[in-house]
Amino acid sequence: MSEQTAATRARTAPDLGELVEQARQGRPRAVARLISLVENAAGSAVPSAPLRAVMAALATGARRPYAARVIGLTGSPGVGKSTATGMLIRAFRRRGARVGVLAVDPSSPFTGGALLGDRVRMQEHATDPGVYIRSMSSRGHLGGLAWATPQALRVLDAAGCDVVLVETVGVGQAEVDVARLADTTVVLVAPGMGDEVQAAKAGILEVADVFVVNKADRDGAQSAVRELRSMAGLVDAPWRPPIVPTVAARGEGADDLMAALDKHQAYLEESGEAERRRLARARDEIEAVALAALRSRFANLHGDRLDALAARLVAGETDPYAAADDLIAALA
Amino acid sequence: MSEQTAATRARTAPDLGELVEQARQGRPRAVARLISLVENAAGSAVPSAPLRAVMAALATGARRPYAARVIGLTGSPGVGKSTATGMLIRAFRRRGARVGVLAVDPSSPFTGGALLGDRVRMQEHATDPGVYIRSMSSRGHLGGLAWATPQALRVLDAAGCDVVLVETVGVGQAEVDVARLADTTVVLVAPGMGDEVQAAKAGILEVADVFVVNKADRDGAQSAVRELRSMAGLVDAPWRPPIVPTVAARGEGADDLMAALDKHQAYLEESGEAERRRLARARDEIEAVALAALRSRFANLHGDRLDALAARLVAGETDPYAAADDLIAALA
Repeated sequence: MSEQTAATRARTAPDLGELVEQARQGRPRAVARLISLVENAAGSAVPSAPLRAVMAALATGARRPYAARVIGLTGSPGVGKSTATGMLIRAFRRRGARVGVLAVDPSSPFTGGALLGDRVRMQEHATDPGVYIRSMSSRGHLGGLAWATPQALRVLDAAGCDVVLVETVGVGQAEVDVARLADTTVVLVAPGMGDEVQAAKAGILEVADVFVVNKADRDGAQSAVRELRSMAGLVDAPWRPPIVPTVAARGEGADDLMAALDKHQAYLEESGEAERRRLARARDEIEAVALAALRSRFANLHGDRLDALAARLVAGETDPYAAADDLIAALA
Repeated sequence: MSEQTAATRARTAPDLGELVEQARQGRPRAVARLISLVENAAGSAVPSAPLRAVMAALATGARRPYAARVIGLTGSPGVGKSTATGMLIRAFRRRGARVGVLAVDPSSPFTGGALLGDRVRMQEHATDPGVYIRSMSSRGHLGGLAWATPQALRVLDAAGCDVVLVETVGVGQAEVDVARLADTTVVLVAPGMGDEVQAAKAGILEVADVFVVNKADRDGAQSAVRELRSMAGLVDAPWRPPIVPTVAARGEGADDLMAALDKHQAYLEESGEAERRRLARARDEIEAVALAALRSRFANLHGDRLDALAARLVAGETDPYAAADDLIAALA
């Protein structure tokens, strides 16, 4: 390596131990760099040596992992998730909490390629050192989000966040998986959004801890509240999701939403469900890392074999199970 | 086994070879049973012996697999995917094509728990023997959809469908993965749906082969068309997605949409891209089956080990990579 390359490298790749230490002190630039490390690895599915070292340091470091309270916000584009996220940032900041935001949502204003107007809405937090806002791209390989999101969460946790808000689009499988990360999952709907409530009915009810009917000043809000209430009434579980009307753009309903979140948090702790959810999250995380590692072995070590098997499958000379067995046998 | 149990079993589990044969003849009940077999297996992640036998028979049987033309329709709830699907069913039926529909969308009227009103819209096809409509639940385990959808497609293919329409909600990772199954992916947007076009911008442009601006009689339709057109103009690829305005509820734009679909199909065949997509689909399918098999090994054979690792991770005694290594080592 030439001296110049070495110098460049030293400048672009600071000491990892120092980076971890700075992130632990809550230094935004270090937090951002560590999350980038996670996100880049998610794109390639190959956990780099530096990432492994960082995760080992964060997971087994001084602060207890899983200390941050994780609140998921989910719902279709247009229901006002980002505005509601902004409202919650303000409410938690008033309590003096350090707040992290992970936007796992291609339509989020926090994510690349979205509306400037919405970004401006969040601008008030851009200079607040108690708020970290970070978007995660959902592009990339299968399971990339399931793999990267918990690790980004780990970085924010280590950085001393008291609360992490995870914003996802709430209709897909990957998003439901991400919702499993949260201690409390808030499902947002808005009146006049077509199939909103139906979407909620079909797939979302089982993940909702709290329902928010946002844009509650619009026509149809009351019937949405009523419909959700009758759905929630059918839930046969110790926790029945409350329905909170809000007009997040004007901050209306913030106190009610905070009260509902606190009530759910108290329920989690009293019932032992908090610990169960943490364990489930840890299981998911380990499994996602293991599957990503196996998947990268398929791609890297056995790419030719996979191509050959695919050609045989297209030609009708094998079937998916036999081909998969062949691929797995090649792992050994 | 008692005689009565054996008799019950014989009644509920007909000869698989016969079932496959009946599905090949296009008998709807047999097609439905085979797809149920796939879907149930997707819920449990354990490929049953009957399913393996069925897939082996279908994949290597008389008719060439991957013969059906697969068209994906994707977009947020409320843009009118189901109505557009209905419009395409009618258009393909007028050509005499046999049509399959897989609705991989929790908000779809084809899926359980959705609006009766929408279901009625599809009712006209309920008695048409040339149309199979089937919903796939996106609930279930990680990657369940990626695993089950191609196999359900395989069943419809074997049943002699000329075209299979796959309807998905178009914002999540799992849906993008499902879009990879399609020969042609149609991305629908509608004016006045909030972040529709932004969602398209952020994550959907790379999967779109054809854009549909549905509800084109509404305010804002022309600007949506213009915006998509300028986005599509930036695409640096041999195929530039056309933008088709439709009012699917009145069947307006059906001819234009069919023309765009045919043009894309011709492009696929001429460019060799059709074969590349089939091979990519086969690779994804093999990989998804292999990963599901490995995942079920984690869950079944090493559940205790995974629980113990999760407890250590929560306690800060290990990190996700070390835990995943441990899990993978247990596979050998």
